[in-house]
Formats: sequence, C-alpha cells, structure tokens
Amino acid sequence: MMTELKKIVLAYSGGLDTSVAIPWLKDKGYDVIAVVLDVGQEGKDMDSIQKKALQVGASQSIVVDGKDEFADDYVAPVIKANALYEGAYPLVSALSRPLIIKKLVEIAHENGATAIAHGSTGKGNDQVRFEAAIHALDPNLSIEAPIRDFHWSREEEIDYAKQHNVPVPIGKESPYSIDANLWGRANEAGILEKPWNQAPDDAWGMTVSPEEAPDKPEEVILTFEAGLPVALNGQAMKLSDMIVTLNEIAGKHGIGRIDKIENRLVGIKSREVYEAPAAAVIMTAHKDLEDLTLERDLAHFKPIIEGKLTNLIYNGLWISPLFDALMAFIDESQKMVNGDVKLKLYKGNVHAVARKSAKNSLYNEDLATYTAADSFDQEAAVGFIKLWTLPTTVYEEVNHVHSNKE
Amino acid sequence: MMTELKKIVLAYSGGLDTSVAIPWLKDKGYDVIAVVLDVGQEGKDMDSIQKKALQVGASQSIVVDGKDEFADDYVAPVIKANALYEGAYPLVSALSRPLIIKKLVEIAHENGATAIAHGSTGKGNDQVRFEAAIHALDPNLSIEAPIRDFHWSREEEIDYAKQHNVPVPIGKESPYSIDANLWGRANEAGILEKPWNQAPDDAWGMTVSPEEAPDKPEEVILTFEAGLPVALNGQAMKLSDMIVTLNEIAGKHGIGRIDKIENRLVGIKSREVYEAPAAAVIMTAHKDLEDLTLERDLAHFKPIIEGKLTNLIYNGLWISPLFDALMAFIDESQKMVNGDVKLKLYKGNVHAVARKSAKNSLYNEDLATYTAADSFDQEAAVGFIKLWTLPTTVYEEVNHVHSNKE
Amino acid sequence: MMTELKKIVLAYSGGLDTSVAIPWLKDKGYDVIAVVLDVGQEGKDMDSIQKKALQVGASQSIVVDGKDEFADDYVAPVIKANALYEGAYPLVSALSRPLIIKKLVEIAHENGATAIAHGSTGKGNDQVRFEAAIHALDPNLSIEAPIRDFHWSREEEIDYAKQHNVPVPIGKESPYSIDANLWGRANEAGILEKPWNQAPDDAWGMTVSPEEAPDKPEEVILTFEAGLPVALNGQAMKLSDMIVTLNEIAGKHGIGRIDKIENRLVGIKSREVYEAPAAAVIMTAHKDLEDLTLERDLAHFKPIIEGKLTNLIYNGLWISPLFDALMAFIDESQKMVNGDVKLKLYKGNVHAVARKSAKNSLYNEDLATYTAADSFDQEAAVGFIKLWTLPTTVYEEVNHVHSNKE
Amino acid sequence: MMTELKKIVLAYSGGLDTSVAIPWLKDKGYDVIAVVLDVGQEGKDMDSIQKKALQVGASQSIVVDGKDEFADDYVAPVIKANALYEGAYPLVSALSRPLIIKKLVEIAHENGATAIAHGSTGKGNDQVRFEAAIHALDPNLSIEAPIRDFHWSREEEIDYAKQHNVPVPIGKESPYSIDANLWGRANEAGILEKPWNQAPDDAWGMTVSPEEAPDKPEEVILTFEAGLPVALNGQAMKLSDMIVTLNEIAGKHGIGRIDKIENRLVGIKSREVYEAPAAAVIMTAHKDLEDLTLERDLAHFKPIIEGKLTNLIYNGLWISPLFDALMAFIDESQKMVNGDVKLKLYKGNVHAVARKSAKNSLYNEDLATYTAADSFDQEAAVGFIKLWTLPTTVYEEVNHVHSNKE
Repeated sequence: MMTELKKIVLAYSGGLDTSVAIPWLKDKGYDVIAVVLDVGQEGKDMDSIQKKALQVGASQSIVVDGKDEFADDYVAPVIKANALYEGAYPLVSALSRPLIIKKLVEIAHENGATAIAHGSTGKGNDQVRFEAAIHALDPNLSIEAPIRDFHWSREEEIDYAKQHNVPVPIGKESPYSIDANLWGRANEAGILEKPWNQAPDDAWGMTVSPEEAPDKPEEVILTFEAGLPVALNGQAMKLSDMIVTLNEIAGKHGIGRIDKIENRLVGIKSREVYEAPAAAVIMTAHKDLEDLTLERDLAHFKPIIEGKLTNLIYNGLWISPLFDALMAFIDESQKMVNGDVKLKLYKGNVHAVARKSAKNSLYNEDLATYTAADSFDQEAAVGFIKLWTLPTTVYEEVNHVHSNKE
Repeated sequence: MMTELKKIVLAYSGGLDTSVAIPWLKDKGYDVIAVVLDVGQEGKDMDSIQKKALQVGASQSIVVDGKDEFADDYVAPVIKANALYEGAYPLVSALSRPLIIKKLVEIAHENGATAIAHGSTGKGNDQVRFEAAIHALDPNLSIEAPIRDFHWSREEEIDYAKQHNVPVPIGKESPYSIDANLWGRANEAGILEKPWNQAPDDAWGMTVSPEEAPDKPEEVILTFEAGLPVALNGQAMKLSDMIVTLNEIAGKHGIGRIDKIENRLVGIKSREVYEAPAAAVIMTAHKDLEDLTLERDLAHFKPIIEGKLTNLIYNGLWISPLFDALMAFIDESQKMVNGDVKLKLYKGNVHAVARKSAKNSLYNEDLATYTAADSFDQEAAVGFIKLWTLPTTVYEEVNHVHSNKE
Repeated sequence: MMTELKKIVLAYSGGLDTSVAIPWLKDKGYDVIAVVLDVGQEGKDMDSIQKKALQVGASQSIVVDGKDEFADDYVAPVIKANALYEGAYPLVSALSRPLIIKKLVEIAHENGATAIAHGSTGKGNDQVRFEAAIHALDPNLSIEAPIRDFHWSREEEIDYAKQHNVPVPIGKESPYSIDANLWGRANEAGILEKPWNQAPDDAWGMTVSPEEAPDKPEEVILTFEAGLPVALNGQAMKLSDMIVTLNEIAGKHGIGRIDKIENRLVGIKSREVYEAPAAAVIMTAHKDLEDLTLERDLAHFKPIIEGKLTNLIYNGLWISPLFDALMAFIDESQKMVNGDVKLKLYKGNVHAVARKSAKNSLYNEDLATYTAADSFDQEAAVGFIKLWTLPTTVYEEVNHVHSNKE
Repeated sequence: MMTELKKIVLAYSGGLDTSVAIPWLKDKGYDVIAVVLDVGQEGKDMDSIQKKALQVGASQSIVVDGKDEFADDYVAPVIKANALYEGAYPLVSALSRPLIIKKLVEIAHENGATAIAHGSTGKGNDQVRFEAAIHALDPNLSIEAPIRDFHWSREEEIDYAKQHNVPVPIGKESPYSIDANLWGRANEAGILEKPWNQAPDDAWGMTVSPEEAPDKPEEVILTFEAGLPVALNGQAMKLSDMIVTLNEIAGKHGIGRIDKIENRLVGIKSREVYEAPAAAVIMTAHKDLEDLTLERDLAHFKPIIEGKLTNLIYNGLWISPLFDALMAFIDESQKMVNGDVKLKLYKGNVHAVARKSAKNSLYNEDLATYTAADSFDQEAAVGFIKLWTLPTTVYEEVNHVHSNKE
C-alpha cells in the first residue's frame, strides 16, 4: 500500500537556491509543487523557469501572472502613502512577499498541501515577511526554509546540485544577489558589503548612469486620480503599464538609483543598492500634487501615518489590523489628490516643475498674491500672532529663560 | 524744552520697503536706529546699505556681522535635525529671524529704545517669527510693522518715497522678492504665483541650471563630528566657511534648487522657489552618516522629533521650551555621528556614494556578510519570527479577517 | 416702501447674555431667529426658553431636539477614540458646537438668513469652534458675536437688559458659568479662578461627593458592539438613553468629577471643573475591552491617533479632512471591539473588574497560562531576544556608553 | 590537577525557583555566586535569604542595598515621564531589571565570573529585560536561564529540590507569583488567568480594599522640584523614603490597585494585577503640577515622548541610545516643574484638589479671569480665528465635502 506524500508549495524563482530546494524537499518526503509568481521581474523567461522546476523534480510547476494584482493592491498603497523606508527605499521586495504567500496559500488549499517552502536565508527580512503572511493566512500550514537550514558552503551546494541533476550556472558566477519586480530591483553582495566601496557599474540593471543619460531633458506629465497615476502625457494607462513605461523612460535618464545603509528587522545594518526609476517619478509627482491639494493639518500629520505604515510593511506585517487602520486613513486622505504634475527628467534628476488641479487645488492665487488682487485680511495677522505666541510669551515673562532679565 | 523722541530699532535691509519705513516711522514720532544683520546674504554691500539708512533719515545705522553666530547657533541645529519643512525646505528665512531679533533687542536695550520695527507684510510667516521673538525676549517692547500697515499700492509707495527723498530703483524693477542668507535664498512673486508656470531662468541666483553645469562629476568628502561638518576634502573649516565654500561648489553643479507649494502658518498655500546648494550637500551627507552610526530604534524615532522641531522653527517658535527639549534630544542623538561621507556632485544631483566611521560605525561586516565569515545566528531568526508575528497570528486565528475561513 | 430686514440665526440658551443679544442684534438691523438646541442639558425647560426668546424680541423661536444626533454622531467618536483632552477632559462642550452650527446653518438656509450669531466671549475656545464650523459650512454667512463685542460690565449689561425689557435674574446671581449637555457639565468662574482654592460643594451639579455616595458598591455590565455600548446589564439601550441612565447611576456614586488646569486654544491656561459621570464609566469600560480585543501594534499606535483627534476636536476643527481621515482609522480599529465589561462603582471610583469577548478576545489562556496547558514555545524566546537586542548590543560593543570598558 | 570552576553570578530571590537553580547550575559545572538586590520588596528578610543561598550550595551570597539607587535612577525617570504602560502600569518590575543586571555585572567583573544566571521563564518580559541589559553591559558574559530550560512540572521541580536539599515550602503553596519592589507589586496566576474572574481579596498585598479604607478623607501636600517630589506635608524627604511613606498612607486608603489585560513583548496578552499606591499619588500630583507649569506646546508634545519611553522601558531597552535621547528631552522639560499639589485620598480615590507654583505657574489670573481685571485682548481672537480656520475654510470652499452646496 502506498502512503500518499505530503504536499508542499514552494516559492520558486528558477535560481540555484530554490532549484536545489526541490530535491532537498523531496528527500524530506514532500511532493513539491513549484510556483513562480510573475510580478514583473524583468528579463525572466517564465516558460523556461516553469520547465526547469519539473526537470529538477517538482510534481507540478505553476506560473501565476500577478502583475496587475501586484500593481493595484500592493504598489498603489505605497504611492498613496509616499512610503520610503528610512526616507529612501520604496519597499520593492517587501511588497511582493505578501502577494506571493497569498497565491501560495491559495494553491496549497486547492491542492491539499500542508506546507509552504520559501527560499529566504536566516538573516534577511524576507523570511519574516513570508512567514508572517503564512501564519496570518493559515497558521496550520507548516513552513520549510531550506536555504536557512542548509548551512552549506557554496561548494557544498554545487556538489549537492550536481548529485541531484540540478543545473549549475556555468562560468564565473554573478557576484550579486538580485531581487526584482515591477516596482524595482534590489542588489546585495560581495563588494557592496564594504560601505566605503562605491557601487560598481555592473551593480545596476534598470538604469544607466547619469553621465550616460541623454543630454537633453525630457518632460512628462502625470495625471492622478485619488492619489494614483492614471495617465502619462495625456494617455490613459493602467498602473502596471504605467510603471513598466516609466521604468524605461526614467531608467534611460539615470533616475532612481539608491545606495544606502539600511536597518534590517533582524537587527543588523546592511548595505543595499536599489533601483526604482518609475517609483522615483511617480512618488515625486504624487508628493508634489499633495502639496497642492492636501489641507495643511492633514498634510502635516500624514507623515506620521506614512512612517508607521512604511515600517510595518518593511517589517512583514502587511496582513495586520494596524495596516488596515492605517490604510483607512491613507485612502480617506487621497480623495482630493486629483490633478496633473509636470516633471523634468534629466541625467539622474527628476523634479516637479509645474502642477495643477482643476477641481481640487487649494492654492488660491487671490489669497497668495502680492498684487492688487490680494483678498487676504492682513489685519487678521495681528490678532493671530498675539494668541499664537501667548503661551511662549507668558512662559518667558514668568521664567526668563531666554529673555533679558534687566 | 525739547521732548526726547522715543527710539525704535528697525530691522533694515537697504531695500525700498524698509527705506521708506524710516521717514514713515519718523512721522510717527520715532528716532530710528537702523540695524542690518549680515547673515551672509550674497552680493550685498553692507557699507552702502549702512550709509543709505542715514541718508534717508535714521539717526544711527549699525551693521552687525552675524555670520558665525548664524551658522553655529541657527544652521547647526537644522543640520543635526535633518530639518526640511514639508520634506523639502531647509528653513532658510525662518532661521535668520530669531537671530535678527536677538540682536535688535540687545541694541534696543543698549540704546534705551522702546520699540522694534520689522519690514514684513501681513500675509507671510516672517511677521510671526519676528514678533514671537520680540514677545519672548522683551514683551514690553512695542512693535511697528510699517509694510503691513501701509496699505499702499506700488505707485503710492514710490510717490511717498520721492516726497521723502528715498532713492527709488531706476528702470524696470525686479519682478522678484528675495530673502537670502548663508544657508540659502528664497524667491517669491509675479510669474511664480501660478503653480503651472515653470520658474524662469532669472528666478535663480545661487545655482546654474543642471544643463549648464560641468559635464564632469566632482567628488567631495565631508568629515563630521557630533553631527556637524568639520572638514571638506580633509581640510578643516569652520561651519560658516564650509557653507560658503559648498554653496559655490554645489551651485556650480546646479544642486539645491527647490520648487514647491508650501503651507504657510498664516493659513494659505504659496508657491516658493528656493536655492540651498550647501544645504543639499551637507544634509545628504549627514543623513547618510546617520544611517551608518545611529542605532536602529533611535534612527526610527528621530524623524518624529525632526518633524516637530522643523514645524516649530517654521512657525516662529524658536524661543520656546519645546524647542529646547527637542534640541536636548537631538544633541544627545548626535554624539556618535562621526565619520566621512563621499558625495558625487553632477548636474543637479548630489548622492552619497561611500561612507565610513572609524570609531562609530554600527555596520558590522561579519554580521552582514553572506560569505563564510558570517557570524550571525540564523537559528535565532526562527524564534524571533514566531514571537514577532504572534499578535497578528492570534488575531487572524480569532477573527479571520484575511485568512482562509474554510 | 419697506426695506426687508436681514435675517440672523442666533444660538440661544435662554440666559441673560443671549437674551440681551436679541435686542442688541435688532438694534443692528437684524430680524432675529432664536434657535435652542436640546443636547440634553439637564434641568432646562425648553418651552419657557422658547417663549422667552419671542418675548424679548425674536421673530421666530425654534427648539431642535438634537439628543440622538448628538449622542450618535458626536459622542460616539469620542468613545471609540478614548478622547480625553490633556488626559482628562472628555470634550463635553467641544462636541456640541459643531452640531449647533450644523443646525443653525440649515435653519439659516431655510429662512434665507445671511448671518449667524453666537454667545461666546472673546477668550474662550467656543468662539473658535462656532466660527470654524460656520466658515466651513457656509463661508458666505456673516458672523455676529455680541458678547465678545459688548465690552459691558455686569452693571451695564443689566441696565441694557432693563431698558430693553429683558428679564433679569432676581436675587444673588449664581457665581458660576455653566455649559452642559448629555455628555457632561463644565463650570468656570469666580472662586475657581485661583488654582489653590478647592472647588466648593455647590460647584458640582451632576454628582454627589464620594463621601455622600452609598456605602455599598454597585456593579454594572456594559456590552459593546464595534466600540460602542449597546446594552447595560443585559438590557439593550440606544446611546443617548445609555448616557442619561449612566449619568444618574454614576453621579449617585460620586463618579466623574474632574478638576484641572487646562491649556486653551487661545493661549491661556484656565482652571476648569467638569463632571461627566457616564463618560467615566463608558470610557473606562471601552478602554478595558480594547485591552482584550485590540491587536498589540494597533493598540500601541492608536493613542497617537487619539491624541491628534482629541486636540483637533478641542481646537474646533471637527469639520476638516484630517478629522475624517483620523476617524477612518478609528472606525476601522473598532470592528472587533465587541464584548462585555463588568465595572464596580463605589464612592467616586469606577474600575473594570472583569471582561470577556466571546468572538474577539485575543487573550489566549493556553498561551498565557503557567499551568501544564501551556502552548507557548519558550524556546522561541531565546532567538527572539537575540535579534530584538542586537542593535543595542552592537551599539554598546562599538561605543561603550554604558558598558564596562575594561 | 584541579580545573578551576567557571564562576556564575545568579540573580537570587530566595524563592524555590532560584534556590533550585543553584544545584542545577552547580551540576552544569558552575561555582555559583548568589546576589540578592534589595530594591525595597516588602516583607523580605534579607539575612535569611542570604543564608539560604549558601545553604543550598552557593559559594558566595551577597545582598546589595539598591533602594536609593533604585529610587533615584530608575523610579525618578518614570515620575518625570508620567510613564504608565498602556495607560495604567507604572513599570514596577521593568524598572528593577536593569539595576539588578548592573549590579550583577559589576560583581561578575569583580569576581572573574564569566556568566550570569536569571530566574525568568521563557514567556515573560523579564527574560528580555535581563538579557538585553547583559548583552549591553558585557556581551562576552554567557547567560543561563535555568527556569526557562527546566521544562519541569511543579512535581518534578519539588522532587529535584528534595534530592538536592533545597527547602520546599510546606503546606498549601501560594497560588500567586509575586514580584515586588519599592515602586509596587505585580501578581500573576491561577485564578487571574481568566479575565472574567474578579481578583480575589488575597491577590492584593499593599492595599486594603476601598470598602475597608477609612471613612474620613486625608489630604496630603506634595512639594516638587524639577519634576520630583522632595517634601511631604512640608517635610523634606529623600525619594525612597517618600515612596515608602506614601505606600503606607495610600495603601491604607485603598489607592493604587490596577487590574488589566496587558500586551507582553513576547507577543501574548496576559492578565495582570498590580498595586502601586505611592506611584498613584506621586504621578497624579506630578501630572497636575505639569498642567500648571508646562508651556502648552511642550505639554501637548511630551506624551509622544512619554509613550515611546514607556514602551522602551517595558520592552527591556533601558540601556539604549534612544532611552538616553528621550530622557534628555524629559529632563529638559522638568526644569520648571516646581510647586505644591494638594491631594485628597479617600477610599480608593486620589485626586489633586489644589496646586500652586510660586515661581513657575503659567496660570495667569489676569488673563484667565472673567472679572474686570481681565487683561486678555479679546479683539485678537477675531484675527486669530480667521487665520486658524483658513485652511479648512478654503478646503470646504473648493471641495464642498461638508458644506451646503447650493
């Protein structure tokens, strides 16, 4: 009598690590269902990845096109929230993890699988993001993290691969460890591990260097509705297409390179090199349009929400009640963020140079002008200043901390 | 018997508005002491300004060199606090106001003056900053704000000037209203009042356009001690000199232009065009070095303090107990911010490309590396993830908001 | 030919100030429509107030029953948000202002009135709350604030009243200025203006002193749905009835007295004496139930939102996009706040002594227990601690601030 | 040849768990130095505890009197910061942990010990607090946590104790697990693990029930300097004595009982019963005096700092650069918190009823009064309101969210 194997769903990338994981999981008694999520990682041949999984031993190999869901449900919140981790990183990898797990759990349930496997190491953020999502979506699923468990040197991994007929990349291997999707590309490794080393030219994949970019600036106009870009230079475009198009345009102008020392959730600092050309353009425009359309108090408090949301996403807690409550604030804040922003792209720079909002501009030229059209009540300022400064005035009268005491 | 005139100390700039204010204040029965504060506003001839005040009727005209005090006591906090109002504006004008008033109040006390006059209009932020400082430093001083009170058209002002022998600028007058100091330059007016208009070339004064900047990048190394830059390319330099030097270097590379819609304290949105080349370089380097040297929790909370401090300064409350408490936090946070940052300047871009801190780097290559030198305990992650995600896991087990409910 | 008079809608209370305002507004050429809003202010005879307005000269006198709208739309957010200004004051008067103006503006529009009058003085918060709401709901309405404009001594006011046949209270007038509604009662004045004076017995109106309260404790059980109380001791009750009932029960036990120095928006500190018995009970229970049902990160961030919302309401900005965004967060946070809280009321104390939530309790006895049923993975803690403390550990290893340096 | 034993310093309490730990650590090859820190835990006989450690096998037994250091260096920050975890818990146990470790590390260094042992379980917060402090103060010390490692049932522990001549408490054992110090007492266990169970009478140790408290209220006056209480009813007293005295006075009045569901750092909710009578009195008075002496903006921002500091302490990160920066803010904020507060204690209640500050009161009766002495400029309010509400007014004019659209 045959015992039925336990089924496991593996987040598969086509690379050596997750390919080696397939025989390794089979050795542990699993029937492996490999799943590749297409979230717009550039230059990947999904067909050959799908075949490779079967070739190295998966019982099923599934490719899921998640590009639109990724753009609409995972990138869109980041745009609305101006979400930049530590002021710089637009959360590229952190965004794909919860979507990948969502799909893997669905496939696990459809196939009666009892476990999920992911290819993260034990010192990065992604293991937390993957496992947080698994715990939230189905805490009964067990988790395998082969790469974290291997404890193999590179040589040992290659030996194991050869023994199990896993194709090993020929020639000098890439010194880089890349993760990419629609929204950007992350690069870690080797030479970058010394923060005083500059990132070499071949560390970059989506952008040219500013020096190689065209000598002529290019202007683009982005149209937003409810905080999201809906048209480029007047042409309506769904979000995933907008991002692809802007990655190309802005990448060509050398825009979107990020080089930073970053605090990981697991407690270490790492040096990261990111590229996110479309993100740089869209987020610059979004922030500029908010300056025009958000009421002041809302504009001044929103960064507190943005900061919390950004850290929450980075830290793997996308599926959480705090995320939902923060997004309720963000969504409410975006209703009037409608209008156009003109941006100039030039040799690594992207700047908003003009902006308008027919329906929702709170800029009132008659209030702002210094011309005769001025409708602002300058008398009001006298009373305003008196009451605005009353607490600090009384404080100094009483305590004479900074005031002249004579 | 002659009645002695009441003395007033006027914040004098040499321009038409504050020049006209002198006869106007004399008409109100004041003896006018004109004071110009040299805070590094470029291209101003302090001698001729000093003489002009006397010529149009001031009884005394005093020039105070405030450059070092401005840099050390007013700009330094902004550097340490990464203070950018609404994420962009390094508080240029907001910084000089409390220093100007400090000096004016000292001069008032030395000369037995009973009033201070400033040249702000009734719809800007500066009136609040001036008057908040006066109230705090000596609430018994009365305040005159002639420009706010004039209610004159341009023609009426010129007529009044001619009648009172105040020199009127000949020829087509500048369409711009400029305020400048060491730390930058603010420009408002006319054509800029339409947010969809692009800022014309002559709106800029400290920077060339990126297109006109050199085709060759330039690298500079800034050395920091306790959060402040102390050497440029290895050469020790006091802060005011550092700023002057970097304004020139970075301005030449087209760095530091800011064009934004801004929320003023008095309740309106305005369109502002700023330049701050040295600020762009120093603040980019400072933030980058903090990424290397600040402990994570401190790094993640500091932006809350920074945001509050920035708004407080913008809103005129420099002299306040909250400012002092926030700065106590900031100063404490900067003790370990020591090291070097290498920056690349090129056609409008300034980016940190390398950083090091011999004594205080918290980047630990042995923890961060993916090589065999790895000293990070990957096993620890398993337990960490379990407890880190326990609250959201239990939440989903109980409430099934996002989890599969089958 | 008769000129038609401009109509004005007056927020009328029946007291001397707003009664005198009627002839005063008529003298200014207005046809006065008096409106009293019944928001549950105890012990007021609405009929006689309505008649009095007509008697002193109003052309119309309208009583609006706003009790349910007040409870459901204005008090409910305060409960969900645990909104206590400066940690103590449940925003009693601040809540009725936007509702009063909403009704007055509606009546103004129905009657073609062009102005609104309110009875606030020039040094309180209420003038801001009234006028902020008027500006937001219809900036074309002009505003009259007779009490702020009178500049009358008490004697002058009484003389004016007598001349205009406005009834003047006979005998020794009350030393107190009271504002009350369903949610509580505010008292300012005379003897209370010295913070070292204790509030005298007759300063209180809704509560007995703890000493006079019953010697026997009373237990009540409040049932919540989505953050709002829906049943008392198992009996379903609409919110306005719940508040009335609890005011009586808790007031009898001496619960809900507040005596504090408060920072007003207009820049001064005032000494306030409040009573809010139902608020004390409901808010104690609500917070306790949140401790049981809110996920930790949500629970720890919500106070930031609560604090901002509370200040916004106190400061008159109920009608604002920031309010709407904050409430979107709060409403989202309350979905699981369902369950029962048992409270003990005794001589001024109200404490939660037990709580349960059949569907949404996140307290998991199997995780929390120290008995054999323990399902918590104690091994996980070792790894958790290692990574949790890694940033501060590395910080000390590098910088030796607190560590032994030998 | 004799191998020298490795020395370990054990945080010893005298209870069964840490007594059993001594032979257990000896079995692991350690020479055990037992250290008891006297932080004012009531009713403990330090002499007999010291002897017991030797009797069960410690090579040295040391009692350290830490009461004043505990009060001055660990409790004082909590007073200044109004630090109440989740709004209720004054951090009793969280405060003693870093002091205990500080002493243990000193003793370890003096004695050449290479390890520290603590008696925490694997599911509480204290293990984190102990180990965070050890890592920070000397990451080279290894850590033993016997109780977390035992995995013993109660019976197994008693068997082990008997085998190793560790005295086992006779008779029915206490159902409670208590941790106490000067600042309060924490109680967990058994019956309390069901949140719907009320805490039984014998769960409390420092307070009588309000019903048993005296029928006569008692007034006390606390005098503060720089945010700390320095005199009680006019009698100067060092902080540790103040706390002891107030524990007795307030405990007698039934003050300071706390019963709450709490979120632990390790991810679970627990039900805790605390007593902190002196804390209730001192913190009530401190907050009240801050209302009188803190400038408004400082008062309104300080809770953000307080909340962060409180969570940091609860979460074991006392020794951290963020703690130091937050305390720099707090210390700066307290300079003017000088004055007297009169409190009424009665049957579980403690309320401030009067307050004064000769030098630093910011309450200005001439500004606050409604009498003829009024010095407040009521005209100023008109201008203030206009500018204060301008952003929301413009928002509604443009967007008509709440306003009448006719």
